Amino acid sequence: MSDTTLIGLGAMGTALAAAWLAAGHRPTVWNRTRARAENLGAPVADTPADAVAASRLVVVCLLDDAGVGAVLDGVDLAGKDLVNLTTCTPAEARARAAWAGARGARYLDGGIMADPPMIGTPDASVFYSGSAEAFTTWEHVLAVPAATRYVGEDPGHAALHDIALLSAMYGMFAGIAHAFALIRAEPIAPTSLAPLLADWLSTMAGSAHLTAAQLETGDYRAGVSSTLAMQVAGIPTFLRTAREQAVRPDLLTPYFTLMHRLAADGRGDEDTTGVVDLLR
Amino acid sequence: MSDTTLIGLGAMGTALAAAWLAAGHRPTVWNRTRARAENLGAPVADTPADAVAASRLVVVCLLDDAGVGAVLDGVDLAGKDLVNLTTCTPAEARARAAWAGARGARYLDGGIMADPPMIGTPDASVFYSGSAEAFTTWEHVLAVPAATRYVGEDPGHAALHDIALLSAMYGMFAGIAHAFALIRAEPIAPTSLAPLLADWLSTMAGSAHLTAAQLETGDYRAGVSSTLAMQVAGIPTFLRTAREQAVRPDLLTPYFTLMHRLAADGRGDEDTTGVVDLLR
Repeated sequence: MSDTTLIGLGAMGTALAAAWLAAGHRPTVWNRTRARAENLGAPVADTPADAVAASRLVVVCLLDDAGVGAVLDGVDLAGKDLVNLTTCTPAEARARAAWAGARGARYLDGGIMADPPMIGTPDASVFYSGSAEAFTTWEHVLAVPAATRYVGEDPGHAALHDIALLSAMYGMFAGIAHAFALIRAEPIAPTSLAPLLADWLSTMAGSAHLTAAQLETGDYRAGVSSTLAMQVAGIPTFLRTAREQAVRPDLLTPYFTLMHRLAADGRGDEDTTGVVDLLR
Repeated sequence: MSDTTLIGLGAMGTALAAAWLAAGHRPTVWNRTRARAENLGAPVADTPADAVAASRLVVVCLLDDAGVGAVLDGVDLAGKDLVNLTTCTPAEARARAAWAGARGARYLDGGIMADPPMIGTPDASVFYSGSAEAFTTWEHVLAVPAATRYVGEDPGHAALHDIALLSAMYGMFAGIAHAFALIRAEPIAPTSLAPLLADWLSTMAGSAHLTAAQLETGDYRAGVSSTLAMQVAGIPTFLRTAREQAVRPDLLTPYFTLMHRLAADGRGDEDTTGVVDLLR
């Protein structure tokens, strides 16, 4: 019996297979388009059912949750450990866990914090949640392509951690895009701004610790260095500068709007943490 | 003659004065509300004109650019080196530089990358631009409260660097707020998410280097690991997750909208760097 079955050989699945093969594992693979499976040097199953039958650990990495249901429809999962690395929402992961449980499988959901090229490097990590027993049993295999981070029994929490971090990243990307747009018409090289941006954002990413502490205590004044009122006073300068540089401020205005709303609510002596509450 | 004059003792000005005093300097200070100046242990000037007369180096840190014009109206600036740390836009800085030049002063504009409590610590830095001679002359004094970063002769470029970095930071803050909002109703401690967020954002801040290189070459496909098309395919999961968690996606949707627009323009094989161009 193979130690691992891998279903789905898109860019991510292929990277996972390559990492396992490079480490001496011999995953049984299946892919809808068989040609993608042929050249990996791994045993290729003819059907999803054959692939699942080949191993106790069944890793699935498909395009979306509907694909998981379609590919595994009618396949006997009894006694299997299903690890679902398909991108999905927390609710989809919970529903899929219940679905797998009803079919006699232990379920682990994974949220991959990596691009395919990062798989197999120390920068890659995957959040896991769901069956702690399944995680303990297979951690040594799962740790081959990417560092593992188990975040609890709730099968939705891996996806939630994944999406929370990626959402934060898109906010940062939006800020970076605005910054580069501001200098675009100036004789300032983007590559001279980039190290300043990267350093500054790395430093300020640490502000998440203070925000978290404030959210837990409910005291949004604790540890404030630059009050909301002081920060709101700076907003017109940001908007005027964007106008001077002919940059649309659309990526920043929603956050500024919420800062203004908090200040108008008499919370000017707090940090900006109240924005979190306004989003709910 | 005092080596430095400091005009404006708000939170930031007071922090600057304290840093200079702690290092053995003896700045002459002036503040509209004299009481704020009395307890510093520094010589207090009666008028802005007296303060300017006391030193060759005149540092101004007021609420806004209009305040600078008002406080220094009619004051003899001939032969002075005016360092303006007042928050302003690039255009305001350029106009203020011309104004100072017309009055016989050399002009340096500064953009402070620090909260008042950071002044005097290694984390504080200030962008300077304008007169290179003035910067060279006073760098040893200016470096006392915060590390100095000279970014060129254009007096608007200090403010532009400052605002570019702070703008990027607010984008990141928006992303962090969204991330915390997503877990707010779950039994996940914000302080357990915070280190994950801080590490991830620090790592991904390095993406600014690739974005910069792409902007300089104009080749937005170079070095792409996750194409725009792949990233756009993930957007519905972000939005569905926000809905499941009862979080308004307002802070992220403007960036997603621009990603969609690029993909619709047939640029799905590029990175997201084209967003920068759409902002102009």
